[in-house]
Amino acid sequence: MKIVIVGGVAGGASAAARARRLSESAEIILVERGSDPSFANCGMPYYVGGTIESRDKLLVSPVERLRQRYQLDVRIRESVESIDRKAKQVTIKRLDTGEEYTESYDKLILAPGAAPFRPPIPGIDLPGIYTLRNLDDADRLASATREAKRAVIIGAGFIGIEMAENLVHRGLETAVVELNTQILPPWDAEMIAPLETLLLEKGVSLHLGTQASEFRQAGDHLEVVLSNGEVLPADFVVLSIGVRPENMLAVNAELNVAQRGGIQVNAHQQTNDPDIYAVGDAIEVTEVVSGTPVQIPLAGPANRQGRIAADHIFGRDSKYRGTQGTAIVGLWKHGAAMTGLSEKVCQRMGLEYEKVYLHPGSHAGYYPGAKGMSIKVLFDPKSGRLLGGQIVGTESIDKRTDVLAMAIQAGMTVEDLEEAELCYAPQYGSAKDPVNMAGFIAAGAMRGDQPVAHSTALVQGELDDALLLDVRTPQEFADGAIDGAKNIPLDELRDHLDDLPKDQPIVAYCKVGQRGYMATRILLEHGFQARNLSGGYTTYMHVTATQPS
Amino acid sequence: MKIVIVGGVAGGASAAARARRLSESAEIILVERGSDPSFANCGMPYYVGGTIESRDKLLVSPVERLRQRYQLDVRIRESVESIDRKAKQVTIKRLDTGEEYTESYDKLILAPGAAPFRPPIPGIDLPGIYTLRNLDDADRLASATREAKRAVIIGAGFIGIEMAENLVHRGLETAVVELNTQILPPWDAEMIAPLETLLLEKGVSLHLGTQASEFRQAGDHLEVVLSNGEVLPADFVVLSIGVRPENMLAVNAELNVAQRGGIQVNAHQQTNDPDIYAVGDAIEVTEVVSGTPVQIPLAGPANRQGRIAADHIFGRDSKYRGTQGTAIVGLWKHGAAMTGLSEKVCQRMGLEYEKVYLHPGSHAGYYPGAKGMSIKVLFDPKSGRLLGGQIVGTESIDKRTDVLAMAIQAGMTVEDLEEAELCYAPQYGSAKDPVNMAGFIAAGAMRGDQPVAHSTALVQGELDDALLLDVRTPQEFADGAIDGAKNIPLDELRDHLDDLPKDQPIVAYCKVGQRGYMATRILLEHGFQARNLSGGYTTYMHVTATQPS
Repeated sequence: MKIVIVGGVAGGASAAARARRLSESAEIILVERGSDPSFANCGMPYYVGGTIESRDKLLVSPVERLRQRYQLDVRIRESVESIDRKAKQVTIKRLDTGEEYTESYDKLILAPGAAPFRPPIPGIDLPGIYTLRNLDDADRLASATREAKRAVIIGAGFIGIEMAENLVHRGLETAVVELNTQILPPWDAEMIAPLETLLLEKGVSLHLGTQASEFRQAGDHLEVVLSNGEVLPADFVVLSIGVRPENMLAVNAELNVAQRGGIQVNAHQQTNDPDIYAVGDAIEVTEVVSGTPVQIPLAGPANRQGRIAADHIFGRDSKYRGTQGTAIVGLWKHGAAMTGLSEKVCQRMGLEYEKVYLHPGSHAGYYPGAKGMSIKVLFDPKSGRLLGGQIVGTESIDKRTDVLAMAIQAGMTVEDLEEAELCYAPQYGSAKDPVNMAGFIAAGAMRGDQPVAHSTALVQGELDDALLLDVRTPQEFADGAIDGAKNIPLDELRDHLDDLPKDQPIVAYCKVGQRGYMATRILLEHGFQARNLSGGYTTYMHVTATQPS
Repeated sequence: MKIVIVGGVAGGASAAARARRLSESAEIILVERGSDPSFANCGMPYYVGGTIESRDKLLVSPVERLRQRYQLDVRIRESVESIDRKAKQVTIKRLDTGEEYTESYDKLILAPGAAPFRPPIPGIDLPGIYTLRNLDDADRLASATREAKRAVIIGAGFIGIEMAENLVHRGLETAVVELNTQILPPWDAEMIAPLETLLLEKGVSLHLGTQASEFRQAGDHLEVVLSNGEVLPADFVVLSIGVRPENMLAVNAELNVAQRGGIQVNAHQQTNDPDIYAVGDAIEVTEVVSGTPVQIPLAGPANRQGRIAADHIFGRDSKYRGTQGTAIVGLWKHGAAMTGLSEKVCQRMGLEYEKVYLHPGSHAGYYPGAKGMSIKVLFDPKSGRLLGGQIVGTESIDKRTDVLAMAIQAGMTVEDLEEAELCYAPQYGSAKDPVNMAGFIAAGAMRGDQPVAHSTALVQGELDDALLLDVRTPQEFADGAIDGAKNIPLDELRDHLDDLPKDQPIVAYCKVGQRGYMATRILLEHGFQARNLSGGYTTYMHVTATQPS
């Protein structure tokens, strides 16, 4: 068995290692265009920022180990230029000499990855406009940060946001430009609002809802001209507006490629040529919750796909189950995590969904050090099946998101979240864990125990007929409340039922939704048409912070 | 509807709050023997130790709020003395006056909890021998710690271990006595070994495999006489050798009670009298993995049971699914977590099981601050169904245990763990998360890709026929290795295959199992009878540390 693998890093290197574990006799050739066939690309922003001090730390498996331990024929600085499917051979170019040669294969695995998108705008090729794909890029950026004072980051996705933290950490004046009206587009805008505030607090200047229309040289520095007319000075620019699957090899070999550019594969990672597999960021995957094809570049899935391709080559029935989009990004001590579908994706797909918000503590409030977090859970309002979850905060947001990720993988419902039995000691959690609380609230909404109203609907005028009832204390109410709300503190509510209308919908709210829930229960039991504003005033503030003015 | 609830805290208070949310008109009487119907009993050791500074922090819901917000008829310092099932009434005693009266009920909820066991040994009633059940106990202990210099803790379960940390934190010379040959008996001994080492490092004197046979006064202090003849001086003693369900009310009312003392209930929490429910530490529950009845006192389950009892009273079909024994205990910055069955329980039940060990990092090794942890996963060797998991370490052991807990709840297999899609950014995890790694290793063992051998079998002489092959570096080998092992570093293994026997089983090992895995694959592919020592030399050291000498 002779296997040629195009591209290293996550998918290609995993496939190579797995193939060797399954066969000592296979000939395994790993062709890598760059110098490093196996490095930790997710660590690069932190190497640029200096948190990861040494470049060597990013080398997951040095070439020598791949050759020695895994007996791989590693060919670095070589590029596969074309595939001859009939002859089952590839043409490889030695990048240092330009020389070309052919290599036959029994099985070919494509792991070419995805390339940072460079938009065709004036000045895009000026020096000082960087992308971040490999260690050479990281070296260039790291050395640029040492001399520069001002940087502009184009694109506020994962890499853009991580670069913002790291450039501030290096002492640079940093601006971020993002075409969307929010940072981190995979998340819903209101969830991300606290991180936008955090970026501003850290001195990052945020330019949302606009884009770079031109880059130009201005003496010793660059200028980034925005479509809104603003001009941002910069000693260098980081382009991080997304990636495009490297599909040219596949396209030229007439392998099936999706409209978004991803190479199409079956569950065994085979392309339409059964001897050619494809894995990693270059392929189209199936989103598991909705069953729709998507382009989601993530390291974990790339590793699994590489493993599955190797398994199948050696006669095993391993199948990729699809990607559910579990992701996390850190920002100083804060972070945002998600799994499954966002609300905007549910809307785009026309899926029926309900959502709830909550703002629990990371562990029992009576033990020191508990930190707040915001959770949003999306679910099918009929079956209760969990569709997605998003969590923003400081402590243990990864833990609760991983729990939700398992629930989605298992096809569980919000009622299963109510019953989840999770670790509880006061340093670690609560007897009613945030995940249980999310289940209680969501299942309560589904069963009609706790009908919910939403701040998103409120700001869009959809609740104009309702009486807004603020059940917080007079002090909290005085410190800031929703326009037009009437204040009756929860503990006085039963004494003021006669002051409330039975023929008008009532939306109760408190700070986070807990007292609002009790108020809603009291009102419903007394025959009022009540709903609880999910996530309370806290979510309301997040929603209004992100409304385009 | 008139509901009488016997006992507050987790189960009783949850039932009361839920009942009120479901009905504004119900009459709800909560009878609590102590002064505080709703307090955080899991926080008490940390209040004694001073980490939680104020007693008020432990009051989850003050009496006033229960009365005002939940309109509960809270009767503190009153005790339900008997139940007249025919007349549907209880006799209640006012503890301060001794006066008794009767109260009728439509539905009765028993949430009496469990009482610390006081063994009938000489001197047990001497002053200075404390238990820790309620806030008055905590106050007494907190004040004892302020004057004392030496304390002896009897019992190394959750409370005993937490008290050890907190007494050391208060500056006391602390000894712990435990009848088992390990601390924290719910866990398997080898997993807990690092925490025993930690306790010793913190200056705690550990007396395992022995018990107190007598307490006696010796001048101004106490003496604890152990069954092994040792005598430990103490200014006070903490008794924490487990709890016994408070079942006298139930027994006297002829409600069904299990042999271990737990009140027996159905999935709706009903006793054999359909108008009497029971919840919390006083009841017997079904362990979900094995389906067997057990006695597991935990706060999360108690809360859920209280909720379910109230639901059912108001006509809902809520059912308790059983308890899976998810638990965690912190010890300085370390901790031990578990979910599902331990190996010793699997053995006791005669269940067929396989196990694997691993020692992954808390997050990507290339990002600073990753901490090690030890994981043990138990599974059905035929179906791969997850039976249990245990994790010991410092960072994010709760996260991985919660993920395993969800997998157990969903009835998932170790192959599902391979496919789990969890949060990955370098600060938070790894592209191959420890949970994925556990899945890879367990599924590899199940499929025969990676047959495993165990240090537990090794020390019991069951692998005496095998060649032990240490594939670490010569330096690692020189620093300490298993007796009789032959050292061939992994990267030289292929060159030394001729030196190895084909007719003898080979057990390969490295530090944690990763190189041992690769060695096993190479050997199997070349026709040797190889297995990998699961968890490597690290697990071997844990196992030998806990072998009774």
